[in-house]
Amino acid sequence: MATAFVTTRRVEFSDTDAAGIAHFVAFFRMMEQAEHELLRSIGLSVVTHDASGKISWPRVSAKCDFQSAARFEELLEIEVRITRLGKTSVTYSHRFLRGGEQLATGEITSVCCRIREGKSPQPMTIPAAIAKKLKPFVAESVSN
Amino acid sequence: MATAFVTTRRVEFSDTDAAGIAHFVAFFRMMEQAEHELLRSIGLSVVTHDASGKISWPRVSAKCDFQSAARFEELLEIEVRITRLGKTSVTYSHRFLRGGEQLATGEITSVCCRIREGKSPQPMTIPAAIAKKLKPFVAESVSN
Amino acid sequence: MATAFVTTRRVEFSDTDAAGIAHFVAFFRMMEQAEHELLRSIGLSVVTHDASGKISWPRVSAKCDFQSAARFEELLEIEVRITRLGKTSVTYSHRFLRGGEQLATGEITSVCCRIREGKSPQPMTIPAAIAKKLKPFVAESVSN
Amino acid sequence: MATAFVTTRRVEFSDTDAAGIAHFVAFFRMMEQAEHELLRSIGLSVVTHDASGKISWPRVSAKCDFQSAARFEELLEIEVRITRLGKTSVTYSHRFLRGGEQLATGEITSVCCRIREGKSPQPMTIPAAIAKKLKPFVAESVSN
Repeated sequence: MATAFVTTRRVEFSDTDAAGIAHFVAFFRMMEQAEHELLRSIGLSVVTHDASGKISWPRVSAKCDFQSAARFEELLEIEVRITRLGKTSVTYSHRFLRGGEQLATGEITSVCCRIREGKSPQPMTIPAAIAKKLKPFVAESVSN
Repeated sequence: MATAFVTTRRVEFSDTDAAGIAHFVAFFRMMEQAEHELLRSIGLSVVTHDASGKISWPRVSAKCDFQSAARFEELLEIEVRITRLGKTSVTYSHRFLRGGEQLATGEITSVCCRIREGKSPQPMTIPAAIAKKLKPFVAESVSN
Repeated sequence: MATAFVTTRRVEFSDTDAAGIAHFVAFFRMMEQAEHELLRSIGLSVVTHDASGKISWPRVSAKCDFQSAARFEELLEIEVRITRLGKTSVTYSHRFLRGGEQLATGEITSVCCRIREGKSPQPMTIPAAIAKKLKPFVAESVSN
Repeated sequence: MATAFVTTRRVEFSDTDAAGIAHFVAFFRMMEQAEHELLRSIGLSVVTHDASGKISWPRVSAKCDFQSAARFEELLEIEVRITRLGKTSVTYSHRFLRGGEQLATGEITSVCCRIREGKSPQPMTIPAAIAKKLKPFVAESVSN
């Protein structure tokens, strides 16, 4: 049974805009922060190294749907689930809540890549040891 | 026949991340900047006032698909089209190019709202004068 | 005897730049976040209201000296002291530490202002109730 | 006689905060952007390579004094001068103007460093070819 990873973020003043609410890009920053915190919670990092060099996870897509505005100093709860664990990519789904009310839902898809300086990231099969650690957060596993 | 609004943005150092490329949220900031520049080009602003008070355009959704990375100091061309002009909302579609190569495509949907301090934004019909100015950028007009 | 307010912030991926380290503006964001957290800890907020309307604290100066770089995912300790509590302004001094090593020191001076929409912020005497709550963090009190 | 490098930046919506004005960190981002644009204007970049590897310019200090607020969509003029060209460091001084009115003044000091992955930046003498190109912007030259 899949478990959501849950964390919190406070809306900081630098996250707000002249409309008096959290600017929409702040949600994308928080989505990424929650994803990285999920990785740390299982002993991983978004930038790792194996015997062949550096591995990282460039995004291929990111989206967010906004239902309600967040304001300065509000404490948001962020749930992260993995809704797709593919051969080379992971889709994280996010839910933002404030006191139980859903404010926004988002999704980021990242591809496991070999990183070499001066070259384009090269997609690679997610190492088995990493895939195994991600499994507990998979809400719906689909192989690609 | 619809015309794209075209502008450029340079990838600034503060847009980059430790992977050595433009961070994905920089694309969302640039999408918004291009949309606001389109509005200025037709004498509008994302924050306006009419006889009844303040009008603005909160986002209900934003997404971006990334095909290739952008690097520090690269000059990106951004095309903006309106792919849906509804009764209360506008969908802007964005295309990022670098020397003719497409790097990313994005989409933002904003809702025309009456803004009153301390209250939630109230969706309202897009004023006719504004809708008229937006029409030339509509690639596919659909009424809702 | 003055007490430092102490908090922590993790260097997030969006804080880093193509040099592989935390971008210098991230330190200013963290300085502000620490200051606002200090205010919350004593039941205040950087944006408050009294019987006459809105009060906030625009910055008149901000500076930071950098001794060592911070990297992605490092947990930084931030100490905040008030080094000057004037009639209308407060100077916050910040110290960034990583495992006991000092990385940077900063300072922000803010002025207590009456905020009215569409007008410039008007400096005002810091209300006595607020000054009283700030006193425990004053390292060196000077009247202006 | 020293020449100021002059550029412009528009206050973007993502630069604003809930006080309805440009957030103070936006000024630091613009100071850096103006400095990098000065470098590009003389055929340089803040990240360069010579026969021995990568050279960059970490900041050792940054400060800004704010006299007046800037608002969404305002076009700011930024003047950059070099107020100190040392053996290993450069101090850039910035002035923000809006329609002739000075809004803020800032200063950033950067040190020329050899950059090696996984090592701390190593200060080095500014290469003569670079120092020569910077000279025309030096308002007051002082050797250290």
